[in-house]
Amino acid sequence: MKKSILLYFGISALLLINDSLCAQTSGWSEVAPGVWKSVIGNPDKTDLFNSAGIKPAIDALSRIASAEFPLPEKNIVAEVINGKTYLRFPLVKDEQIFGFGLNFKTVYQRGKILQLHVDHYGGTDNGRTHAPVPFYVSDMGYGVFINSSRYLTVYAGSGVRKDSPDAPEERDRNTDKQWTSRPYSDAVEILVPATGVEIFVFAGPTALDAVRRYNLYSGGGCLPPRWGLGFTQRVPTLYRAEQVEQEARSFAERGFPLDFIGLEPGWQSRSYPCTFEWDSTRFPDPPSFVKKMKEMGIRLNLWTNPYVSSFSPIYNKILPYTSSHTVWGGVVPDLTIAEAREILSEQLLNNQINIGISGYKIDECDGYDHWLWPDVAKFPSENSAEQIRQTYGLLLQKMTTDLYRQKNTRTYGLVRASNGGGSSFPYVIYNDYYSHEDFITALINSGYSGVLWTPEVRSSKTSEEWLRRMQTVIFSPMAMINAWSSGTKPWSFPDVEKEVREIALLRMQLMPYLYTEFARYHFEGIPPFRGMNLEPGFSIKSKAELKNKNLDENPYAEAVMKEIKDQYMTGEYLLVAPLFSGQTTREVILPEGKWYDFYTGEYAGDGEVIKVTPGLDKIPVYVKDGGIIPMMQPMLHAPASGQKFDLEIRYYGSKQGYYRLYDDDGETFDYEKGIYSWREIKVTPDKKGKLTGTISKAEKGKPDNVGTVTWKFMTE
Amino acid sequence: MKKSILLYFGISALLLINDSLCAQTSGWSEVAPGVWKSVIGNPDKTDLFNSAGIKPAIDALSRIASAEFPLPEKNIVAEVINGKTYLRFPLVKDEQIFGFGLNFKTVYQRGKILQLHVDHYGGTDNGRTHAPVPFYVSDMGYGVFINSSRYLTVYAGSGVRKDSPDAPEERDRNTDKQWTSRPYSDAVEILVPATGVEIFVFAGPTALDAVRRYNLYSGGGCLPPRWGLGFTQRVPTLYRAEQVEQEARSFAERGFPLDFIGLEPGWQSRSYPCTFEWDSTRFPDPPSFVKKMKEMGIRLNLWTNPYVSSFSPIYNKILPYTSSHTVWGGVVPDLTIAEAREILSEQLLNNQINIGISGYKIDECDGYDHWLWPDVAKFPSENSAEQIRQTYGLLLQKMTTDLYRQKNTRTYGLVRASNGGGSSFPYVIYNDYYSHEDFITALINSGYSGVLWTPEVRSSKTSEEWLRRMQTVIFSPMAMINAWSSGTKPWSFPDVEKEVREIALLRMQLMPYLYTEFARYHFEGIPPFRGMNLEPGFSIKSKAELKNKNLDENPYAEAVMKEIKDQYMTGEYLLVAPLFSGQTTREVILPEGKWYDFYTGEYAGDGEVIKVTPGLDKIPVYVKDGGIIPMMQPMLHAPASGQKFDLEIRYYGSKQGYYRLYDDDGETFDYEKGIYSWREIKVTPDKKGKLTGTISKAEKGKPDNVGTVTWKFMTE
Repeated sequence: MKKSILLYFGISALLLINDSLCAQTSGWSEVAPGVWKSVIGNPDKTDLFNSAGIKPAIDALSRIASAEFPLPEKNIVAEVINGKTYLRFPLVKDEQIFGFGLNFKTVYQRGKILQLHVDHYGGTDNGRTHAPVPFYVSDMGYGVFINSSRYLTVYAGSGVRKDSPDAPEERDRNTDKQWTSRPYSDAVEILVPATGVEIFVFAGPTALDAVRRYNLYSGGGCLPPRWGLGFTQRVPTLYRAEQVEQEARSFAERGFPLDFIGLEPGWQSRSYPCTFEWDSTRFPDPPSFVKKMKEMGIRLNLWTNPYVSSFSPIYNKILPYTSSHTVWGGVVPDLTIAEAREILSEQLLNNQINIGISGYKIDECDGYDHWLWPDVAKFPSENSAEQIRQTYGLLLQKMTTDLYRQKNTRTYGLVRASNGGGSSFPYVIYNDYYSHEDFITALINSGYSGVLWTPEVRSSKTSEEWLRRMQTVIFSPMAMINAWSSGTKPWSFPDVEKEVREIALLRMQLMPYLYTEFARYHFEGIPPFRGMNLEPGFSIKSKAELKNKNLDENPYAEAVMKEIKDQYMTGEYLLVAPLFSGQTTREVILPEGKWYDFYTGEYAGDGEVIKVTPGLDKIPVYVKDGGIIPMMQPMLHAPASGQKFDLEIRYYGSKQGYYRLYDDDGETFDYEKGIYSWREIKVTPDKKGKLTGTISKAEKGKPDNVGTVTWKFMTE
Repeated sequence: MKKSILLYFGISALLLINDSLCAQTSGWSEVAPGVWKSVIGNPDKTDLFNSAGIKPAIDALSRIASAEFPLPEKNIVAEVINGKTYLRFPLVKDEQIFGFGLNFKTVYQRGKILQLHVDHYGGTDNGRTHAPVPFYVSDMGYGVFINSSRYLTVYAGSGVRKDSPDAPEERDRNTDKQWTSRPYSDAVEILVPATGVEIFVFAGPTALDAVRRYNLYSGGGCLPPRWGLGFTQRVPTLYRAEQVEQEARSFAERGFPLDFIGLEPGWQSRSYPCTFEWDSTRFPDPPSFVKKMKEMGIRLNLWTNPYVSSFSPIYNKILPYTSSHTVWGGVVPDLTIAEAREILSEQLLNNQINIGISGYKIDECDGYDHWLWPDVAKFPSENSAEQIRQTYGLLLQKMTTDLYRQKNTRTYGLVRASNGGGSSFPYVIYNDYYSHEDFITALINSGYSGVLWTPEVRSSKTSEEWLRRMQTVIFSPMAMINAWSSGTKPWSFPDVEKEVREIALLRMQLMPYLYTEFARYHFEGIPPFRGMNLEPGFSIKSKAELKNKNLDENPYAEAVMKEIKDQYMTGEYLLVAPLFSGQTTREVILPEGKWYDFYTGEYAGDGEVIKVTPGLDKIPVYVKDGGIIPMMQPMLHAPASGQKFDLEIRYYGSKQGYYRLYDDDGETFDYEKGIYSWREIKVTPDKKGKLTGTISKAEKGKPDNVGTVTWKFMTE
């Protein structure tokens, strides 16, 4: 022991000397258009980008305006000291930053202190969340990504350095009314508990461009299959095959759209932990069942979590590739090992995917801490429990997406954990939380972090709440009722059944628009659901308000930042401003430019705050001037591959409108080989204001699923 | 760079090989009676015990029953892997553990997951608290201490290992009603982010004995000066000298006891950050002022935080020994450097201690994160920001206690952070939180972790709340009103002024008993305020209850442990069962043995639950059978050194009573040289039940401050 200690000390000294050579960044190299990378010290072998297996979309990146390195290089500092990496990025006065993953209560991140740590969100924006993505974007028009799968500590403009040129004036709290508990901070500082790290900077020029570059560098956003954007219902966990069939029939009978049904844990012979095989009592003939559902136009999505039961057919094979610790008695596959992935993949393929299952809901790969392996767990790959926790969601998404890719079939599912580099995975995050307001804030934040989030509907205390929740889930990546426990149906609240049907059908009508916006997510990196701060012309500078002057309760006189986190953009043109249960009136902030009521086409305002009282049956939606919304007829199912659908092209306002409608087979990956079309839609006013709409043909040989085209100029 | 990378990889391999030699503990050596230590790997240079500068009380330890190593050695596992230390300690079925610092909502720690991290408590028992002491004690009768100043991750019986002999049966959640979200765990697992650590095991045989050994190994608990156990009032922050003098006069006029007044930030010329010097406007002549207060019998305690203002006379001298980052614009002294301590000490001594200031309230050395240096901060000693955070409270307490020790004068003050090894420091923890119920839970937990806590009174919405809070602060280490902001006085609620005066005078009457109990804390390691679970005969096995069966809200059917956290022991004999605002009736759990009402001497019960409705003016207090409570006459100030006080010795019940009353000069450290007395008090019933009380004389030459002795046999 003594010898090794001497050896250790001697070597530590050497390492320290070597580490000081890395006191600054190793310099920046442009690895893709507008994307720079620097390598600090000696990074971990495993990181976020390589866990996600990103394939940067270089061509797409080159189509964004070329750009210079967007930060003052000399103000970016990186040091490796005693085995940890210290990073600093400059901030200027009035600069605001966004991102750092799926936060639920705050959009503005400047001033925040976060431990970026995969976990089930716990009620506080402290960094513990399903996708604690170490990416932030600045309203000055750049983004920064820390490519580390460690638990990172982020001081997003909170620390003040003694020798900073911007160090704020010192104030005497005894007598100076201007004393603040939060002195001005001029930097984002990050601690990476590793001997090095890769850091990336993404240029703008706008904040949205920086987000786009991040998404494109990650491979582009995901393009779901068309059916994924339809309506989905998850059934109670112990439903049997005939009950699922009856569910589908009920939807059809009542005229509610339904594209896929989610089966919850009961489809498996055992769950918590899982066997990954059908329960023979509840599902005696899975292939027939799947086929029957397909004939009704309904696909199936299967719940699972990653923990393998000793009763599972794969248990013995996978056991050598599992962690020291169990979760709910199930072994934890080390998904960084190829054999583990192969064993699990083979089971999913043979037992489910090959008989026609369309996707998965991957539960409990996040936390809470009690429901995940502890940080002391050991994995046979010798990767740390910490790093496997931070990347497990990515590994699961990658593994399953690859399975579907092998079959040239797109999937769309749900997952409870993701991280940086995951933009291309066709998965939507959900959780057990249920604050409706916070669900909308998360939807906004998803757009800054390259993930998708659904404010799923499970149950409600009143029909008002039910309808309000349905209204927002319709304007989200996945329109879903999750009735695993509640057993609710869209019509569970009879007095709003009609309104729920209407809004669900509106979801279907919007499919051409939504599908195009997801195509833009893929090809251009533009998040389909995003916050107002990424919208040009949105210039509300929020101020901090001192709400509680009682020093006994608020001893440091902390002011609360008023943020806009209850309205968001859906696609290029739609501004969605939900009401929550108990609300009848709300303010809507309209960015600069004219905006029009989606339902009536009436002018609503321009760069102002309006007050609206929409009534329970409406969720306020506004359309940009010149907005073109291609819609289809209300259908109960998404168009199948090759199925034609008629277009109703709505146009709002009065200025020149231009939109490119996306089309492909809606189901395969052939779009990656160029089998898609972009069709130009234009609406041009003449001198008298008379409008003419045109839509180009699809290129020869490219997909064209459009039947008849009707024009609806909404604004008189 | 490449060369150093190759070197690094080569050496890492060597280190890994070497580290595997440390796969088990290095063996246990008994470093003091009933105290074993093991050294794992290569511990940090700085740890908790050496930061606290502990002086183990070996003699006192030898007076506890000798003991064997209390755990099965082979089930204790320690490994160093990739620079981190993994520890495992066994647990058996039904074993309960306590400790892990100052928790506010839970007493039972088994099943908890904690990040032990100094911080202001934030509302959840997640390990972030003022004193996150890495010590736990088992009801099987042993204790474990991890001597690390890193942020530790603790899985206190939550993780389940694949290969554990106690691995629970796997259950199918689909159909098995016995499925639990928390499968049985047989170990405490701890991750130490360092290349090694010292671990300590403390024998029992009882849990209380294990706590005693821990406290004694830390140097014994603190013995405050007598005046420290009197009543204290903290005045509004901008009070001037004459207002403070008036405050003291008001107390005297209204007959309220008062031993020391706390001056808040306004005594300094500037605060947040601090100058550490008197404000010349509010305190034009500090030495006169202190003298005048002393003449009124009032000592002074001064608020401060550690952050040095650029306006401070010590700023330029201390600047080279400060951190890279500032807090509220003040520089942060690196207190691990002797020069920094000397500069700060010199200022405190010359400016305050030498003119007669009796102690400090050391604020904001805990958090929140925004109000402390970030983990990226650098310190000139090159100690990590993390380790300095974990030990800063210890360093501040040690530094200031040493200053008073030099003057052979005891101090007693307040601090907002402490940690393992700090039992001997004469400081009481407080915070900005204010849940009365949680304050009592913290008081209970303080006894398991070698710290002191006060449920200070600041303000109240009603007089009922005011009185209820006053009632509990009286039965705590520091009887205090903190009116720094609220400006309250004991008589602020006129309709309970009488009751408040009574209870404050009761505090004074109890002084001989409380002072003796603190002497036992020092000499015997017995915490004066502690939870019922350390009390012999307390055998309530709490069960977990499933309170919320709604799976939508409680998706894992989590059961809540019913703990006893609203009643506690004060000293050897007194069981205190407070009521909270809004409560008129409560249950009290009486351990085995007879218990008697403190106020009336009436029999109350024996090993049972009783229901009491005490009225607003009483806080329920019960006395063990044979309990001897030495009290003095109600005085407005603690007896001065050498001042005689009359004793009223109360006796309760009917069985033989034996108690050793402690006495010394009440102010100096001469007790460390043997200048103290223990006088035996006995109450013996004869065959007919007639009681005789005797008190021995003090040894010749030893302190004897007792005047007349009256006996009060309370129970008919």
